[in-house]
Amino acid sequence: MAAWGERLAGVRGVLLDISGVLYDSGEGGGVPIAGSVEAVARLKRSRLKVRFCTNESQKSRGHLVGLLRHLGYDISEGEVTAPAPAACLILRERGLRPHLLVHDGVRSEFAQVDTSNPNCVVIADAGESFSYQNMNKAFQVLMELENPVLISLGRGRYYKETSGLMLDVGAYTKALEYACGIEAEVVGKPSPEFFKSALQQMGVEAHQAQ
Amino acid sequence: MAAWGERLAGVRGVLLDISGVLYDSGEGGGVPIAGSVEAVARLKRSRLKVRFCTNESQKSRGHLVGLLRHLGYDISEGEVTAPAPAACLILRERGLRPHLLVHDGVRSEFAQVDTSNPNCVVIADAGESFSYQNMNKAFQVLMELENPVLISLGRGRYYKETSGLMLDVGAYTKALEYACGIEAEVVGKPSPEFFKSALQQMGVEAHQAQ
Repeated sequence: MAAWGERLAGVRGVLLDISGVLYDSGEGGGVPIAGSVEAVARLKRSRLKVRFCTNESQKSRGHLVGLLRHLGYDISEGEVTAPAPAACLILRERGLRPHLLVHDGVRSEFAQVDTSNPNCVVIADAGESFSYQNMNKAFQVLMELENPVLISLGRGRYYKETSGLMLDVGAYTKALEYACGIEAEVVGKPSPEFFKSALQQMGVEAHQAQ
Repeated sequence: MAAWGERLAGVRGVLLDISGVLYDSGEGGGVPIAGSVEAVARLKRSRLKVRFCTNESQKSRGHLVGLLRHLGYDISEGEVTAPAPAACLILRERGLRPHLLVHDGVRSEFAQVDTSNPNCVVIADAGESFSYQNMNKAFQVLMELENPVLISLGRGRYYKETSGLMLDVGAYTKALEYACGIEAEVVGKPSPEFFKSALQQMGVEAHQAQ
């Protein structure tokens, strides 16, 4: 295995995922993945810029960062690119007022957004809030719109919790897409715009990042 | 409009849908659709064979027929082709032991089926039972199988209740298909096998039916 210096020639910045890379979420906050705390510390001591790019849409950035610091990570809120704040920018730019099908833990990210008389639906990893009642409500909002707009925070199929595999937002987005006969707009990975915004925030060009 | 006799030349049997044709379901059992009680009675007085072919998968045939009789319909359990009994035949033929993601109201149809140590999932219109927990459980069963088999009782996008539009089984089937990377087998309309079994039960060939 080549040394870091050689493998990272020309690289100025590193984007790190969080869930499944830094930690596995679960009861009591989750557990760090072996070696990751030291790896992040080592990257931060290097000449490389470091940014965290996550599709986590169940927790606010504040909550997520608090949890990771508790697990031993050197991380701050300003270093995290997450889909909820990215969605808020889009909503503002396009004058969209969302009906939110989201977890209570991420609701604070939308505190400044007008949610009255909704003209779109934002779906995130709502976890236990993916009840039949809540899914129907989001579906009914979409069906009442002349041009239904569904914004999905990610396309993930499932993720691993300490208790086992859990369905992610992508599965529920598929359900609404099928029922309404529409296609969702994805904010989050793998959307190129999402990666670009993370690079921009880091001040690094795409060819200089890993 | 041509008289019945002329329009039905060569026709020996009629397949009738139930939900949205005979009645709209909803609180208190639902309401009959105007003119349908008399239309069924008239068909039954004619020389035509009549059979009811439904994708209803929330209620047992016994419950459904009781409800329709209460609304004024002349109908018996033996005249109804429904996906749950059709699925039971398939399960038996192929030695499949299902994990059931179904409404409690239809569970009795599966009373004779071995559900121990499941090697497939049967999904129906589970209504309120489409909780995140129940969806995850079905997902986990599928992910633990070497060859995941998902049998879906219909492909409906949504249906109308007296209280509004409700998501149907097809939407939740899509969610599991996407999460597992598989395709479900559909038992119920629009599966040709399902229509054929209804015709067979009526003793009528496809070209003689409407």
